[in-house]
Amino acid sequence: MTGPCFIFFFLLLNLLPFFQTLEASHCSIKGLPLVRNIADLPQDNYGRGGLSHITVAGSLLHGLKEVEVWLQTFAPGSRTPIHRHSCEEVFVVLKGSGTLYLASSSNKYPGKPEEHFIFSNSTFHIPVNDVHQVWNTNEHENLQMLVIISRPPIKVFIYEDWLMPHTAAKLKFPYYWDEQCFQVPQKDEL
Amino acid sequence: MTGPCFIFFFLLLNLLPFFQTLEASHCSIKGLPLVRNIADLPQDNYGRGGLSHITVAGSLLHGLKEVEVWLQTFAPGSRTPIHRHSCEEVFVVLKGSGTLYLASSSNKYPGKPEEHFIFSNSTFHIPVNDVHQVWNTNEHENLQMLVIISRPPIKVFIYEDWLMPHTAAKLKFPYYWDEQCFQVPQKDEL
Repeated sequence: MTGPCFIFFFLLLNLLPFFQTLEASHCSIKGLPLVRNIADLPQDNYGRGGLSHITVAGSLLHGLKEVEVWLQTFAPGSRTPIHRHSCEEVFVVLKGSGTLYLASSSNKYPGKPEEHFIFSNSTFHIPVNDVHQVWNTNEHENLQMLVIISRPPIKVFIYEDWLMPHTAAKLKFPYYWDEQCFQVPQKDEL
Repeated sequence: MTGPCFIFFFLLLNLLPFFQTLEASHCSIKGLPLVRNIADLPQDNYGRGGLSHITVAGSLLHGLKEVEVWLQTFAPGSRTPIHRHSCEEVFVVLKGSGTLYLASSSNKYPGKPEEHFIFSNSTFHIPVNDVHQVWNTNEHENLQMLVIISRPPIKVFIYEDWLMPHTAAKLKFPYYWDEQCFQVPQKDEL
């Protein structure tokens, strides 16, 4: 190893604990103020184009056990996957408009969904296990919503299309924004 | 009974079923659209000066079992009672500012509470069973918040002051906005 390269490697090794601390504090409630400015909270698209997601109050980040609150913004044309979950979910639309696609879970597959127009200052909730998709179908404006779920962290079954059988829907857990901070629960040793 | 008075009484009797229907539909999800304009939802102060409360998505009104969402506006100087509850509660401040008073439940009585400044676009949650009060201490502006609770309908223990023992706090159930639609659960006959 040449001299400069060795020094760089040595520096990197010394910085490692610093990066690990950053990571740990991002996934822990310790040191967070009780009242938090939403503008200061971590915001990311978690690999999904057109999405901005902020966990306003959450299970993995803030220690909540029964509810979780997200602030989500969808750019024109962007959308959630077609999916279902067995928790309750309430939406409050803060800005923009779009379409909610909703199909019941009573047949073998979702089938053609109902279409509901959603708009600024509207609210709706998703019946438990109903298959749904929220789509910013407004070409000119972002769609911003507060999303509330029960029983976090969320366990989502994703469909490729509306004709996929419920049994073929694929579990995504932990979900996109929970991946980084999710830890497999420790089992008690026998 | 004089003629005009009798006619009035007769008309009133005929209108009774109409009022009963109104009452029933206010407390039932039947006939409500899936997507609701929040501006069209029932809004009231429920006998508390300076308060505007809207149940955006609720247990008694919309059949939710695990979460409930309120939109509350406090006029300058108005406040919640000093209280505690064993459900989780998350606040998202939409407009204005004020003070959160918070005391733990680990002593015999709450004692002098911590004071936290709350402001537009801030969020905070109340640790389960901690005694708290939210007060619009801003003289010039309404304080508007979205409030999310778990395990609805809410069961609240109210304190007269911060020195009242936890055991003396008085249960208010159903809570102000749940009184009209609350029904005592029917017990199965043996």
